[in-house]
Amino acid sequence: MPLGRRERLAAIAALLTGEPARLFRLEAFAERFGVSRSTLSDDVSRLSDIIQAAGTGRVETVQGPHGGVRFLPGFEAREQRALLEEFARSVADPGRVLPGGFLYLTDLVCAPGWAGRLGTVFAQAMRDAMPTHVLTVETKGIPLALMTARALGLPLLIARRDARVTEGPAVSITYLSGTSGRVQGMSLPRRALPPGGRVVVVDDFMRGGGTAKGLVDLVAEFGATVAGIAVAVATARPAPKRVGGYLPLLVLTRVDEASRWVELKPNLDLERVP
Amino acid sequence: MPLGRRERLAAIAALLTGEPARLFRLEAFAERFGVSRSTLSDDVSRLSDIIQAAGTGRVETVQGPHGGVRFLPGFEAREQRALLEEFARSVADPGRVLPGGFLYLTDLVCAPGWAGRLGTVFAQAMRDAMPTHVLTVETKGIPLALMTARALGLPLLIARRDARVTEGPAVSITYLSGTSGRVQGMSLPRRALPPGGRVVVVDDFMRGGGTAKGLVDLVAEFGATVAGIAVAVATARPAPKRVGGYLPLLVLTRVDEASRWVELKPNLDLERVP
Repeated sequence: MPLGRRERLAAIAALLTGEPARLFRLEAFAERFGVSRSTLSDDVSRLSDIIQAAGTGRVETVQGPHGGVRFLPGFEAREQRALLEEFARSVADPGRVLPGGFLYLTDLVCAPGWAGRLGTVFAQAMRDAMPTHVLTVETKGIPLALMTARALGLPLLIARRDARVTEGPAVSITYLSGTSGRVQGMSLPRRALPPGGRVVVVDDFMRGGGTAKGLVDLVAEFGATVAGIAVAVATARPAPKRVGGYLPLLVLTRVDEASRWVELKPNLDLERVP
Repeated sequence: MPLGRRERLAAIAALLTGEPARLFRLEAFAERFGVSRSTLSDDVSRLSDIIQAAGTGRVETVQGPHGGVRFLPGFEAREQRALLEEFARSVADPGRVLPGGFLYLTDLVCAPGWAGRLGTVFAQAMRDAMPTHVLTVETKGIPLALMTARALGLPLLIARRDARVTEGPAVSITYLSGTSGRVQGMSLPRRALPPGGRVVVVDDFMRGGGTAKGLVDLVAEFGATVAGIAVAVATARPAPKRVGGYLPLLVLTRVDEASRWVELKPNLDLERVP
């Protein structure tokens, strides 16, 4: 069906934003919409401006025989700050304080909307490090890690607490968990990560950094390197943690069980903690 | 910035498809783009046709004071069949056969692209059952379940193998796992699911159906009901399984370890197994 330019732009916008980071060949679009490649190049250039103005990300054109066009999700600085402030307000809700002074965050970090928005923030902050994989450890970090991987167009790897027969030969490490004070294990299928891979580590929560350190060690066992570490919420103490250079979205300074008081600070400038 | 109609349509398309199932108020769009509500209604109606033609889903208008417009992802019948056939080919890859005759599927079900496409198929199949929540059990089903929840605009619930202090009071059940032949436990935070909830259960793999049966029992403990069960891959045997009425995307009939032969059938018409 031949579409007018108006319709073509909207259809291309829907296709690109529906699968972020996926490279669409211009030839495929040209064929689909029955227009010349140069017409389509004009469309893409116009669409790039429109999406920039909509504030949901940007359109990137990749040159060359394997090139094409793709949508990279991202927020403008102002919207990103507003988002982090809203996330901070949600986390500080007194109703989240649990017996023992823990914070119930599961519903937030598992909500598709929040996981998507925070994953986009992570992706935008990590894109320049040219990662090849996103890694998390089961369980609550998985939605965030998936949405980060989606926004970056990368595979998601999930380390397991125990190696599973259904995942074949695996590489295992042990690490000291600060939360439980115990030595724990973590494993990743041998085939999951090639040597030379550049890995973004994503998790929902960091206290002592033991789990993140375990993931860093696991990556090293594969001959791969860590391109960045991102967590939704990190506690201010203990400091320093077992890993450095991580990016937290919120820093939690105090949870008072009796008064249900939650004290935290959004990391509005996305500064890495040394 | 005032945009022409052409640009407005593309911008609205980008906003709607960027957050599937999220209801956007027409007033907010009208204000943002500086046009009247009736102009915007025309835009939405035109956009609805365009997205229909693009084959990535449909635009729904919800009437009333809390109404608005939203994008519901979905595939045309033909594209859905092609997708399931491609998924079947990927799963049948001889390189996936592991020692013990297991199939390595982790990379597929965790890939953002596949999780997104299969989650959209699940969402489309389950939408009419009017679910309120999507539930899975850790670990490998989480990406699929998240993308299903995202396409439906619903919260994701993750049952844990053990109750965690960081999730507060929880409801636990025990179930017989066919894979391990052992009694296992599963729990969900008390606050996660209200009575009367209608739950879609999602998992990556079903053999005996013990885990799915456990999830069904867990839902019942909350005074909620199961609106549907969806799995990416189910084995043909044993039949019947411990739950009925589930929707598999692929049915696996044989995995031969020696010859690395994988025999399976895509469920092209999305028939429920009784």
